[in-house]
Amino acid sequence: MIQATLFQLDNYGPWTTTPSPRREMDLQVLQAELYADVASFVGDRQGYAFYARGDNILAFTNGLDDEDHGHLQASVRNRYPVTLSAGIGSGQTPRAAVADASERLQQAGSAQDSDRIEVLRGDPVADPGDLTVAHFDVVDATGRYTDSEGAFGSHLAISRAAAALSERLYREYDGLGFFVGGDNVIAVCPPTVEEYGTLVDDVAEATGVALQVGVGSGETAASAGMDAKHALEEAREQSTAVVRSGNQETGAVQAMETADGPVTR
Amino acid sequence: MIQATLFQLDNYGPWTTTPSPRREMDLQVLQAELYADVASFVGDRQGYAFYARGDNILAFTNGLDDEDHGHLQASVRNRYPVTLSAGIGSGQTPRAAVADASERLQQAGSAQDSDRIEVLRGDPVADPGDLTVAHFDVVDATGRYTDSEGAFGSHLAISRAAAALSERLYREYDGLGFFVGGDNVIAVCPPTVEEYGTLVDDVAEATGVALQVGVGSGETAASAGMDAKHALEEAREQSTAVVRSGNQETGAVQAMETADGPVTR
Amino acid sequence: MIQATLFQLDNYGPWTTTPSPRREMDLQVLQAELYADVASFVGDRQGYAFYARGDNILAFTNGLDDEDHGHLQASVRNRYPVTLSAGIGSGQTPRAAVADASERLQQAGSAQDSDRIEVLRGDPVADPGDLTVAHFDVVDATGRYTDSEGAFGSHLAISRAAAALSERLYREYDGLGFFVGGDNVIAVCPPTVEEYGTLVDDVAEATGVALQVGVGSGETAASAGMDAKHALEEAREQSTAVVRSGNQETGAVQAMETADGPVTR
Amino acid sequence: MIQATLFQLDNYGPWTTTPSPRREMDLQVLQAELYADVASFVGDRQGYAFYARGDNILAFTNGLDDEDHGHLQASVRNRYPVTLSAGIGSGQTPRAAVADASERLQQAGSAQDSDRIEVLRGDPVADPGDLTVAHFDVVDATGRYTDSEGAFGSHLAISRAAAALSERLYREYDGLGFFVGGDNVIAVCPPTVEEYGTLVDDVAEATGVALQVGVGSGETAASAGMDAKHALEEAREQSTAVVRSGNQETGAVQAMETADGPVTR
Repeated sequence: MIQATLFQLDNYGPWTTTPSPRREMDLQVLQAELYADVASFVGDRQGYAFYARGDNILAFTNGLDDEDHGHLQASVRNRYPVTLSAGIGSGQTPRAAVADASERLQQAGSAQDSDRIEVLRGDPVADPGDLTVAHFDVVDATGRYTDSEGAFGSHLAISRAAAALSERLYREYDGLGFFVGGDNVIAVCPPTVEEYGTLVDDVAEATGVALQVGVGSGETAASAGMDAKHALEEAREQSTAVVRSGNQETGAVQAMETADGPVTR
Repeated sequence: MIQATLFQLDNYGPWTTTPSPRREMDLQVLQAELYADVASFVGDRQGYAFYARGDNILAFTNGLDDEDHGHLQASVRNRYPVTLSAGIGSGQTPRAAVADASERLQQAGSAQDSDRIEVLRGDPVADPGDLTVAHFDVVDATGRYTDSEGAFGSHLAISRAAAALSERLYREYDGLGFFVGGDNVIAVCPPTVEEYGTLVDDVAEATGVALQVGVGSGETAASAGMDAKHALEEAREQSTAVVRSGNQETGAVQAMETADGPVTR
Repeated sequence: MIQATLFQLDNYGPWTTTPSPRREMDLQVLQAELYADVASFVGDRQGYAFYARGDNILAFTNGLDDEDHGHLQASVRNRYPVTLSAGIGSGQTPRAAVADASERLQQAGSAQDSDRIEVLRGDPVADPGDLTVAHFDVVDATGRYTDSEGAFGSHLAISRAAAALSERLYREYDGLGFFVGGDNVIAVCPPTVEEYGTLVDDVAEATGVALQVGVGSGETAASAGMDAKHALEEAREQSTAVVRSGNQETGAVQAMETADGPVTR
Repeated sequence: MIQATLFQLDNYGPWTTTPSPRREMDLQVLQAELYADVASFVGDRQGYAFYARGDNILAFTNGLDDEDHGHLQASVRNRYPVTLSAGIGSGQTPRAAVADASERLQQAGSAQDSDRIEVLRGDPVADPGDLTVAHFDVVDATGRYTDSEGAFGSHLAISRAAAALSERLYREYDGLGFFVGGDNVIAVCPPTVEEYGTLVDDVAEATGVALQVGVGSGETAASAGMDAKHALEEAREQSTAVVRSGNQETGAVQAMETADGPVTR
């Protein structure tokens, strides 16, 4: 079983325009700092939290119990002008776990219900199993994009690849992928997914952007994610599209002709 | 003339994996806090800064001179383990200004050149003209997505609409759109763009997501953006797809049948 | 046994003036944010951390093990331009525990030894006992100082009382007191201390500033501290100088003639 | 004329205990982050802000106008659960300027008046004169204290010296001194003060702690403070107790026999 948490700001939309629209940069700073606090808290407990929509943060929280969640919620209440609700869900796949978390929270009331304040719903998983994390990045992103195209064009190209990847992962494999800055996408995937080579090929065909990926697993998002990072380093060194930790290399299918240097974030 | 700044972390990719991969949540916190600092600094001077790729932050900086940029760079050097370079560009359109900023920075060296440290290139614009900002959001995002779909599905749907909008704006109108959290896209556009109704229709057709937009203008990104926010409030109240400040309403084309309540972030 | 940690920035002094003096406000922001991160991390684990000298932060860390300390150190390394060493100490009194932590760290090298980087010394306590926390504040600080004297004069008067209190606590009772903002001093004390009434009287006589105090105990700094806060609330309501949790009221000695309203931070 | 600002949180004391006492580490993080934001904002405009009591922050704000102050207040309101009032004062001395700022704010209502929300009182100085900043630190603090005494004992010794210095400066010279971490005290002083050698001698006699000081001046706190930092560097190199910028060395009175190495923060 995988445990996921949906953190959702309470009644945030109306707050941003009451009594009149608030300054955008203040909202951006608030959202970035709130995310930094959630990521720090969850990361300190070996989980991963993703920005997603900012007022809806998605986290993989194996090992965090009700008390941990409540501690974070109190900390937000004590330091921000807004409050935070949370739904804890579980499932055999990341998709199912987040869907469960979403339903739990939806049952407690609308995101814009002014009476829904700092609720915590759902049940932590007593004995969660392993997680699989796939860490993708763009082959030679610096040479192909950052150093040679305009910054907005690069941003669009990488966003396009990230979006195509995330859509496919979600619809076909029940995996959840998130753009995490630079040229990186981190996905939490079911352990059964094996088609990483196909995925990378499909994204290249659809968007013209070549990806490479390292796949890792572990008891927590942090350990699976670090495993995936090492696998990705290996993929870079070997100019291979896919490396799974444990040396079970799948792939090497796509020739990485331009990946002659370290390819990094 | 529009002034834009490309802020780029120096040699960040290699740093994230040297001597071995750094913990992802630490990187996420670093990126979020750095962005919060840049957004706060630029916002305090009436500009707008967008996260973009995190290690490449795009800002509209009318009124910020070399000294301001240098002050921010020193502050990053004094408080972060990484340094920040900046290219200042100008142009008749947002697209041209960012392209110019990108070229200036590229000429100073690669983003992964370990000798390129905290450079500042380009020239602030002496007498910048007005800016136009278009603030889009999704009609009834809470009812249609947040409260009724899974959080990842909602995230994907809104990302899809944001991506479709940004692609079109960029390719056809030289405008630069950025997802800013919730269900919001903020775009800096040439003043000549009038086809907001067409844009909204096209995105609805391509993605099934209904948008509405408020368009404002002003001497700074902050004043143009606030003007746009007020126009968007009016669009919500009137169930109209497009409102331009100054009461020049374009649009009202798309029936907003479900927008029966305040539709917000 | 009480467990204490001395967190010390490595070679910070020389860094602040290399290659030339760094801007003071950048240093202040760095120190405040670093402290906020340490306080948040330690607080999330039911400990208390005090700013002290900023580059030397003192914490009561019952329950935090080596791995926790190492996690925090890595997080500082990954997000700041400086690194953090730590000495973990233990003792029958707070004073002895901090002295032990200090010696452990000193044995690893000077605070300005450029080769001492991110060391962690000392041993967490396997089975720490209860902690006692005394939370002091100034009787009617708002009326007597904040609203009636100049802000610097108020600041000096409260600092003077905090200093007199901390000196006495340290020399006579082996307790460690820290000014924590507003008009508040929080002290970690040996459980055997009973002379809170005498302390408060002595400070009033020496500085003219009237204090009141709530004393609590618990397995962690957070629980002892919250217990003390509730006791202090009771002291305010009863206009009593000293309240110990468990209703063992000592004191009521000093007439609180002006404390006719809630006296707060 | 010198311009000073007293920033004061509105009704903060009652908030910290309503509806029941809030967790201390959350309050400490809130106070540290708020101070970091104020210091960053004021520092970006060449001023200096000091933590003081945390809920009362004292700043020297030459050049910041009403709009700047209002911008910061709005930013606090948009990102914190508390609001910030400010009194702007002026005077021939730092003491007089802060006293004026305090009175302005006090006239607007009590710090615990629940109706006093985000007020801004007082008038920015149209044409402020130069500021004088004296930057003190402890001679060989690392050798004498940090590396050889317990961390709390060192903290007490340095606090004692800082307190003795600040008391004297305030009562005899109308200067305002603030402990800023490490072994540093920064004081904003009237330009007429010349008795730095006497001050240093008096503090040494009263507390046994040897200080050295660099004195600088400039149009802003930042430039005067940087000037003072360079003067202090010179004092360290020359083993002299007092250096005023412009090479007008006063002092060299006190033999600095132990200052044989770089003496730093």
